Amino acid sequence: MAIITLTTDFGEKDHFAGATKGAIYSELPHVKIVDISHSVSPFNIPEAAYIIQNAYRSFPKGTIHIIGIDSEINPDNKHIALQLDDHFFICANNGIMSMICSEIAPEKIVEINIHDKIQTSFPVLDVFVKVACHIARGGTLEVIGKPINDIKPIRNVVPYINDDKTQIIGSVIYVDNYGNVITNIKRSFFESVQKGRDFEISARNHKFKKVFNKYSDIVNFDIPEDKRHDEGRGLVVFNSGNFLEIAVYKSNSNTVGSASTLMGLKLMDTVSVNFIKNTVDVYPERPLKTELKEDL
Amino acid sequence: MAIITLTTDFGEKDHFAGATKGAIYSELPHVKIVDISHSVSPFNIPEAAYIIQNAYRSFPKGTIHIIGIDSEINPDNKHIALQLDDHFFICANNGIMSMICSEIAPEKIVEINIHDKIQTSFPVLDVFVKVACHIARGGTLEVIGKPINDIKPIRNVVPYINDDKTQIIGSVIYVDNYGNVITNIKRSFFESVQKGRDFEISARNHKFKKVFNKYSDIVNFDIPEDKRHDEGRGLVVFNSGNFLEIAVYKSNSNTVGSASTLMGLKLMDTVSVNFIKNTVDVYPERPLKTELKEDL
Amino acid sequence: MAIITLTTDFGEKDHFAGATKGAIYSELPHVKIVDISHSVSPFNIPEAAYIIQNAYRSFPKGTIHIIGIDSEINPDNKHIALQLDDHFFICANNGIMSMICSEIAPEKIVEINIHDKIQTSFPVLDVFVKVACHIARGGTLEVIGKPINDIKPIRNVVPYINDDKTQIIGSVIYVDNYGNVITNIKRSFFESVQKGRDFEISARNHKFKKVFNKYSDIVNFDIPEDKRHDEGRGLVVFNSGNFLEIAVYKSNSNTVGSASTLMGLKLMDTVSVNFIKNTVDVYPERPLKTELKEDL
Repeated sequence: MAIITLTTDFGEKDHFAGATKGAIYSELPHVKIVDISHSVSPFNIPEAAYIIQNAYRSFPKGTIHIIGIDSEINPDNKHIALQLDDHFFICANNGIMSMICSEIAPEKIVEINIHDKIQTSFPVLDVFVKVACHIARGGTLEVIGKPINDIKPIRNVVPYINDDKTQIIGSVIYVDNYGNVITNIKRSFFESVQKGRDFEISARNHKFKKVFNKYSDIVNFDIPEDKRHDEGRGLVVFNSGNFLEIAVYKSNSNTVGSASTLMGLKLMDTVSVNFIKNTVDVYPERPLKTELKEDL
Repeated sequence: MAIITLTTDFGEKDHFAGATKGAIYSELPHVKIVDISHSVSPFNIPEAAYIIQNAYRSFPKGTIHIIGIDSEINPDNKHIALQLDDHFFICANNGIMSMICSEIAPEKIVEINIHDKIQTSFPVLDVFVKVACHIARGGTLEVIGKPINDIKPIRNVVPYINDDKTQIIGSVIYVDNYGNVITNIKRSFFESVQKGRDFEISARNHKFKKVFNKYSDIVNFDIPEDKRHDEGRGLVVFNSGNFLEIAVYKSNSNTVGSASTLMGLKLMDTVSVNFIKNTVDVYPERPLKTELKEDL
Repeated sequence: MAIITLTTDFGEKDHFAGATKGAIYSELPHVKIVDISHSVSPFNIPEAAYIIQNAYRSFPKGTIHIIGIDSEINPDNKHIALQLDDHFFICANNGIMSMICSEIAPEKIVEINIHDKIQTSFPVLDVFVKVACHIARGGTLEVIGKPINDIKPIRNVVPYINDDKTQIIGSVIYVDNYGNVITNIKRSFFESVQKGRDFEISARNHKFKKVFNKYSDIVNFDIPEDKRHDEGRGLVVFNSGNFLEIAVYKSNSNTVGSASTLMGLKLMDTVSVNFIKNTVDVYPERPLKTELKEDL
């Protein structure tokens, strides 16, 4: 039984997501449909790219992912289907897949060419569902499209690094439900540049010298619970997707505040990492932990 | 395997939708439940009517639609079940179904009369689920209700047209996730009045002389992409449900703006179409396209 | 076929809920997954406790409930699994279960101890899913944890009652999608203290002398519909979960207003009930209905 996932900017209120599911069940009564998100900001391609990249891997091989963001077909915006990491993705060729593809090469890409048979002002319903059901029935991509080699890129997928490798300049690519601020700096990239050096992370006027592995690593559990004041403190972690994230402990934008509200960080803002040549290479065993002097 | 859909104003946070699904699975472990929307504005019947009308058609024949808006039973608000277009609908008799029924006559309507057995302050859970499961098991409507002939209407379902058929006066019935503004003027009605004439659509102080078939028809793709300034431009389309919609290209209320935010259009606002007697009937082949002079 | 439900503060936008579902289907392709809520306010344990308590009972016996709120493991926050009322619950030991446990004693509680095998910064995905799938396959709690006797309590689960039993002092534990304000005063507790006496309920400067069984009991249906002015009137009901709730008839925070917006009531605010010794015990047959003098 195939799984079809949906990632769209349809929102939670309108009929679009419901209608799409109805169309899928009309073709394939036994498929499983899973909502990944319908709350991507309208036409926000980097957000959709971040969400699908972090969600798809948990699904079984063979899962079919429909991504409905800015999917109206026109001369600049063709429809594509990809096979990548043994998953299938159906979307517009507008950059959504470039974040995943920068890490894993697609096994196959086709430009969908079944539009001569379909007049549509609702391409997710009329085109993407058709393609998804075709794949779910075991059909090949070549039947619904012509092979192409490249997809359209988006900017800011990869952080900038200076020539003498003392600085990474990244940017904020996502702000999550907790107001935590996620950068495009991945753990593997960070560590490959760091090579054991101390560092300072700067986001606006906030500085951090340590990256934690989980949020509560900021807490000193030797202090009794009622004497601690950790809620609302800023910290940096590698999050569960291995992205460098500027966070606030027990963050809530409406109560204690969040990295987004307290530090004023927003999409596309710059986050930089400056590496410091260690005078004595004395901490080779602690690549990420230096003296504890977090900001806030 | 039957499908039961849910359209409610329960919101995304409360336990109501989850509890309803639990009650359905308790009766019918193998049914499919599909959320259409739980974000209808509280007690907003026209919104619910628009959503269910546009969603239901994508589902297979025989699908059972629970609509939980203003469903507390009282002397003025009875519960009904309808068979229409080979689908089943269960809701309060408060006008929700009058938009669909204005286009397609119901095959059967019953007023649900199983309440003597059910004490409830949660009618969707206690009554509508019972009725839905009864239908899903193949039961007839007559067993759970007594046949009636009419349902309660809502206002503003059908636009007004003047006597000499030179003007349609419609109203805004829905504002979607993109801030696009949807009127009660359907394509078939518009075209039956238009009869090839030129026209001017007015919404507040904005005027439009053309209706597009899709959003990106406003773009001139001969201009290089970096020289175009189409995002945020206003336009009129017949949307995927064939309603006349005042839209903004790549609309996002939080960034480029939307028809709702930029033009100040909201629910129940008037949108009028004035038809112009063509001096020479020169464009019979282009019923919807006149000279390009869209507003904004 | 087992059912696994999800109640989290992941929000509607992020990939967390989708990824969790993918991980479940990767282990158990035939399980049913039901979203109860992903819109619990971040780290808000009383909200989650209220939602799961009111939702779980509708599900079939044997259902497995994952509750992902403040679930990062640390010395003060262990993971637990409970069997209670023939349902299974998996969560952090942070008080979420104490509201349900104050009414129904758990059949079994274990502290989950499979973390030696799992490095995680996403415990719902990595730990709770593993435990849920273990239970869904028929595994016992003892295999994934060590039995414990107590769980961590939360405050404000039970209202205060004075020594001579003339006053209940409760507090607001939840504000629902309609802006209705729910207290921790349950019907059975209220009636056991009331013993037929008249009473006055106070919330800020608003007073109520009656508790209704449903919202539209406030309406006098003998008055013609167009002469009634009930929308926006305040009232008190025992809601579908049998909690004392301060409500507004046909409430909508954005239009007619809600108990929350009109009366300024919010989480943790005090709601008190003062019982009045009846001079003549003349209404023994009407335990909840006294003279009609509701506020607003």
